[in-house]
Amino acid sequence: MATVLVPLATGFEEIEAINIIDIMRRGGIDVKTAYLDDEFPSDLVTGAHGITVQADVSLLSVNSDDFDMIVLPGGHEGTNRLVANHKVQELLKEFKLKDKWIGAICAAPLALHKAGVLSHNYTSYPTIQDQIRHDGYTDKEKVVTDGKVMTSRGPGTAICFGLAIVKQLMGIQSHDKVKTSTLSDFC
Amino acid sequence: MATVLVPLATGFEEIEAINIIDIMRRGGIDVKTAYLDDEFPSDLVTGAHGITVQADVSLLSVNSDDFDMIVLPGGHEGTNRLVANHKVQELLKEFKLKDKWIGAICAAPLALHKAGVLSHNYTSYPTIQDQIRHDGYTDKEKVVTDGKVMTSRGPGTAICFGLAIVKQLMGIQSHDKVKTSTLSDFC
Repeated sequence: MATVLVPLATGFEEIEAINIIDIMRRGGIDVKTAYLDDEFPSDLVTGAHGITVQADVSLLSVNSDDFDMIVLPGGHEGTNRLVANHKVQELLKEFKLKDKWIGAICAAPLALHKAGVLSHNYTSYPTIQDQIRHDGYTDKEKVVTDGKVMTSRGPGTAICFGLAIVKQLMGIQSHDKVKTSTLSDFC
Repeated sequence: MATVLVPLATGFEEIEAINIIDIMRRGGIDVKTAYLDDEFPSDLVTGAHGITVQADVSLLSVNSDDFDMIVLPGGHEGTNRLVANHKVQELLKEFKLKDKWIGAICAAPLALHKAGVLSHNYTSYPTIQDQIRHDGYTDKEKVVTDGKVMTSRGPGTAICFGLAIVKQLMGIQSHDKVKTSTLSDFC
C-alpha cells in the first residue's frame, strides 16, 4: 500500500487539504496528516476559513522512510508556515534525496522552491510564479508532473490533483473508480 | 449578512461538507457547523474517510430563527444519522414552515424527503432517487433549485453547490468573485 504524508499548517486551505486527503483515501492510499510544532503545537489545526481539523500525528514524530510521498496543501498563511518550518524543509530535502514523490498545490510550491526541490516544469496559484520563476511555469494544466514532483493550482483543481496522485501511486483502475464515484468528470 | 447552519453527522462526506462551508465563508456568509447529540455527542465529528472536524456548536442549542438556510452534506452513514435524528428532522420542518432556504447534497436529499420538505424538482447522488422518487429527479444538472430547496449530486459538484448558494444568498458579484478566486471554471 502507498503511504502519503500531509502536513497541516495553521491557515491551510481547507478545500485543498480535505479534497486531496479524501480522494487519496478513497483510492486506497494510507494517508497520515501531521500538525506542525511551531507556535501552535496542537493536533487541532485551524484552516484559512475557520475550519478546525484534527491531525493524526505530530510532524516531529515523522520519519521519511515510512512514506512514499509528501503533499502540501496551500493557503497563504499555511504556505508561509511551511516555508518557515525547519522540519517541513528538512523532510522535503529528504524526500527528494531518497527519490520519493513530492506534491504541492496553490501557493505551496513556494515551500518546494525554498527547499530547492521544485522541478523545472510546474504550476501554482496565479501570481505565485512571480515569487518562484516564470521559466517552466504553466497555467494551462490543472496538474503538472515533472519527474517525481507534482504541482496543482488551487481549490478548484484539488480533486483533480488527488486523482492524479492516485493514478501515479495506485494505478489507472483505482483512479478511474474514484473519478467515477465522486462524479469528477471535469478532471 | 446571511447565516447558514451545517449539521455534521458522524460519517459525513468530508469533501462535500468542507467545500460547501469554505465556499460559503469565502462568499461572506456566516456559517455555523453543528454536531448532533446522538450516540456520539462530541464537537469532534469524524467523517466517512477518517477526517475529524471540530464543529462550532451543539445542534440542540440551535434556534432556526437565527439562520436563513440549513444545508446537509451527504455520505451514506452521515445521511442515515440525519434521517434518524429528531432535531434535524424538526429543524427541516421549521425551515420549510418559516419559508427559509434548505439545501442537501449527495444522499442527504433523503433526509429532506423523510421530513417532507423536498421540492418536486431535485437531484441527488446516483441511485438515491430509487429511495425517493423518479418523478422530478434529474441527473442533468449539478445543482437544482426549486422554490427555496436546493439539491446537488456529490463530491465533484460540491464547490458548484456552494457557489450556487452564494449566488442566491449574497448575489452574483460575490458568486463571481469566489468562482474566479477558487479557479472553479467548471461550475
